Amino acid sequence: MKGIGVSPGIAIGRAFVIKKNAPATNGIVLKNQVEIVAEIERFDISVVNALAEIDAIKNNSQLMLNDDDIAILETQVELINDPQIREDVVAKIEEEKKTANDAMIEVTAGIVALFESMDDEYMRARSADFQDIGNRILKYINRTGDTNNRSFEPDTIVIADDLTPSDTITLDLNLVTGFATQAGSRTSHAAIIAKSKGLPAVVACGDELMTINHNDFIILDGLSGSVYVNPGEDIISRYSAKSASFRQQAEVLKTVKDKPAITADGKQVTLLANISDADDLAMVHDNGGEGVGLFRTEMLFMDRDTFPDEEEQFEFYKKAVLQAKGKPTVIRTIDIGGDKHLSYFNLPTELNPFLGYRAIRISLDQEGLFIVQLKAILRASAFGSVSIMFPMISNVKEIREAKFILNKAKNELFEAGVAFNNDVKVGIMVEIPSAAVTADILAKEVDFFSIGTNDLCQYTLAVDRMNEKITHLYDPFNPGVLRLILNVIEQGRAHNIHVGMCGEMASDPLATLLLLGMGLEEFSMSAASIPAIKNIIINNSEATAKQVCQQVMAMDSSENVIAYLKEITQ
Amino acid sequence: MKGIGVSPGIAIGRAFVIKKNAPATNGIVLKNQVEIVAEIERFDISVVNALAEIDAIKNNSQLMLNDDDIAILETQVELINDPQIREDVVAKIEEEKKTANDAMIEVTAGIVALFESMDDEYMRARSADFQDIGNRILKYINRTGDTNNRSFEPDTIVIADDLTPSDTITLDLNLVTGFATQAGSRTSHAAIIAKSKGLPAVVACGDELMTINHNDFIILDGLSGSVYVNPGEDIISRYSAKSASFRQQAEVLKTVKDKPAITADGKQVTLLANISDADDLAMVHDNGGEGVGLFRTEMLFMDRDTFPDEEEQFEFYKKAVLQAKGKPTVIRTIDIGGDKHLSYFNLPTELNPFLGYRAIRISLDQEGLFIVQLKAILRASAFGSVSIMFPMISNVKEIREAKFILNKAKNELFEAGVAFNNDVKVGIMVEIPSAAVTADILAKEVDFFSIGTNDLCQYTLAVDRMNEKITHLYDPFNPGVLRLILNVIEQGRAHNIHVGMCGEMASDPLATLLLLGMGLEEFSMSAASIPAIKNIIINNSEATAKQVCQQVMAMDSSENVIAYLKEITQ
Repeated sequence: MKGIGVSPGIAIGRAFVIKKNAPATNGIVLKNQVEIVAEIERFDISVVNALAEIDAIKNNSQLMLNDDDIAILETQVELINDPQIREDVVAKIEEEKKTANDAMIEVTAGIVALFESMDDEYMRARSADFQDIGNRILKYINRTGDTNNRSFEPDTIVIADDLTPSDTITLDLNLVTGFATQAGSRTSHAAIIAKSKGLPAVVACGDELMTINHNDFIILDGLSGSVYVNPGEDIISRYSAKSASFRQQAEVLKTVKDKPAITADGKQVTLLANISDADDLAMVHDNGGEGVGLFRTEMLFMDRDTFPDEEEQFEFYKKAVLQAKGKPTVIRTIDIGGDKHLSYFNLPTELNPFLGYRAIRISLDQEGLFIVQLKAILRASAFGSVSIMFPMISNVKEIREAKFILNKAKNELFEAGVAFNNDVKVGIMVEIPSAAVTADILAKEVDFFSIGTNDLCQYTLAVDRMNEKITHLYDPFNPGVLRLILNVIEQGRAHNIHVGMCGEMASDPLATLLLLGMGLEEFSMSAASIPAIKNIIINNSEATAKQVCQQVMAMDSSENVIAYLKEITQ
Repeated sequence: MKGIGVSPGIAIGRAFVIKKNAPATNGIVLKNQVEIVAEIERFDISVVNALAEIDAIKNNSQLMLNDDDIAILETQVELINDPQIREDVVAKIEEEKKTANDAMIEVTAGIVALFESMDDEYMRARSADFQDIGNRILKYINRTGDTNNRSFEPDTIVIADDLTPSDTITLDLNLVTGFATQAGSRTSHAAIIAKSKGLPAVVACGDELMTINHNDFIILDGLSGSVYVNPGEDIISRYSAKSASFRQQAEVLKTVKDKPAITADGKQVTLLANISDADDLAMVHDNGGEGVGLFRTEMLFMDRDTFPDEEEQFEFYKKAVLQAKGKPTVIRTIDIGGDKHLSYFNLPTELNPFLGYRAIRISLDQEGLFIVQLKAILRASAFGSVSIMFPMISNVKEIREAKFILNKAKNELFEAGVAFNNDVKVGIMVEIPSAAVTADILAKEVDFFSIGTNDLCQYTLAVDRMNEKITHLYDPFNPGVLRLILNVIEQGRAHNIHVGMCGEMASDPLATLLLLGMGLEEFSMSAASIPAIKNIIINNSEATAKQVCQQVMAMDSSENVIAYLKEITQ
């Protein structure tokens, strides 16, 4: 059976099948005032019980809840305590003579539908929370018992049609080793929670999944999305070995999270995260990220009808800066164009959009839009450690123009008496070959570089990485790409400016030693990747890394480079 | 007034306005056999006169006809002598009782329409020749006199609705200094001829042009496309100076054509031509080209329904090799994909075709097609000095694969006992940044490099040069681009392989000294550009060029580079 692997790891064990019956209305019409009062009381007691249950979950140390879990539970408490809900339920009982069950089902359905119709993805996700609350209260109304105390055996694999947030939260990690669901997607709540708990999970397995019987022997691969039901000996022994090594690795990474990223011979590097939203910062702190190396600002501009004004942008940036809790945050000005279009901004139709009107090229051409964003970022800089980064710089003139407009923005804020950090650091993405080749020239104009390996690799090799016909040519280990990266790092150091990397290469364990050996001091990546990279840094020395770099830079093909790096990282 | 400047130079003089009346039918119905015989005789005599006129033009030494002109006239003689034409005209006179005038007009219209409907661009262009022939014969049928003997004054500027090939050929260059037409385009016959004659010309001026009166004072700028009618003193004096220096320059270039391209201090470079077809070689020899630095093979593959087979390709390459008359010819394997598609070869739809499946990527993926082309080129190598060049190389593996397939092709020919040059030289286009950065690695694999500045510049700057929104960013003088070019030249020399350049930069007079100073020894360009570049080389020293290079390579922006180069080339 195949689904979407959403949280890596191997789970081996016995199936525990949860088939949930959708709550059903009973259609009973209450006969008199006594029954009405009894149903209202039934509702009120159920709410008290549901709140007590949430409290019990929160305080159950066995569940090893993390900050995300607690936040979900607290949101649920807030929603339950909303007086509007009781008002609506009571009205249905008193006026429409409905039972507490039917009233609660209808009120829940109405609120879920409301959330689901919202444009904002975050608010849409709240609909799952509210369905969860409704179910929890209904459970007490109908006295169907506490599903949180399911009697799991050790090594249980939960098989379910879908899992609500509280289902996922309350899976006892001492007993449950993974789950697979019939529905769901890569971004569904359950998938995200599974990932944050490090629980192997497969979603979207389809109807076939529910043919699994209680106690079937299951192997689940949360990376590939495979689900094996009662597999043969060979598969069992192969996956047993895989599982053991994966668990061992996961244990090691947990112990690594709060350690500083220092090599065995004392070289310290900074591990930062790439984010798109203030909400991403919980995971950054959780994974020991030391700040934000790349805050993409495009998300605020997507899925809407007009450009966000200065105030809205300011709030968006400020929220992230505050949640960074004093850690540095590099905000990149907008990188639209290429494959990212806005419904309300008319971009030209281009034969080769990746070689077209995008990112800083649009910002410099549309100074009005650019200055609004710069002012909003500057205002956010009063609330924490903020730097500004320009994407898609190809020459020195663009930097000078961008800085000129930044100064205009500063002057406007200054004259209006609005607070901002006048010493905000200014840097550029180095992602166009000409920028990498002239790093020495550009270094004189800025405070830092961030190497964008994805685009740099695309342009240096003339390969669209999304183009399936030529994926074999997209290759960050091409000696030409590596030389450009080395040049950027060396020139940055020679000119005493910071050099980081925020492309995918920064989170590729195969590249870590090589980059360290090149002298890279800041790696920025998705938060979840930080522990694995930190583990490599802690367990190696800078001296070794330099030798690795020397070896690699003498090689003439990426085939040789990759073979060598695989050999030394095994 | 503004048109399209199609042939550079300044013309100053008096207008000679030619308004042609389209030939009109007279609708007369012939009454008897006597009239019929008379009309047929009238036609036959007109044909004899037309042929005599062409002969007279050919032998008129005052017209200073070049090979292209002679070829056009000979094509016309051939077409006139086609017996089918007389048959059609006579049939219309005998059976439909039409006059020779009406019969000739109808037959001409039919043939012109037939040529115009053809897919092949070359054949479409023949429609103008045939219209020309028809008009020439009609002139004699109607006894309207010899338009070739128009009584031009010295310094005449011809103003016309359109000019036929023979109009253009027979303009007396001792008297006519330029022309402007109402219709036409950059690729129209008249434009091409004007260029080959070095006659300043502006086409597509629109209806307004025909408001010009006979003897109006005209200044015409064949570069900018401006046409001034009775301009003021300031414009006259400004353009007089421009014209004088341009004429002087043109005279100098004529004297330069057959000299070797040697600097004042004895450094010899090779000036080659880029061609698409064997027919281009006449102009190459005419302009003193020392061979073909780039023979694009795409033209043979365009405008047809199937891939040309080995035999047809062989004939196409052999023809060019023979017409090169012993001079070296570098044949580039096919560069389709990108913006060049073939109706009969299904290329994928790509988001960014310039970063996609094209050139050597297709050849290596479709070995069957590739080996056919390689065998055809190898067979042509038995007939002259041929080298093979692979486009769009991004890494060393591609070269090795291409050479492996080339060896297969050689083996197949060898086993079949077919002649080819086993020592054929193999080179690559250096047009992808990774290739330029790793020139030292790639130099070990090939016999020569040819720097393709157009693509190299596009990828290095991440700019599609066809994209009008960002033309300001396409900039061959960007320091990053210049450093890559310098690296390729230096590494080629260090590894003792030839380095040429076949991109547009090779024909840019602003870049010549810089490239010479970098050590470039082979410049390949459109044949017409060769004299101007040679003139620069002859009139400068390698020592100066090296100083220019040193100055430029120390600059941090293309604005500075361009300003400096403009200053020193004035």
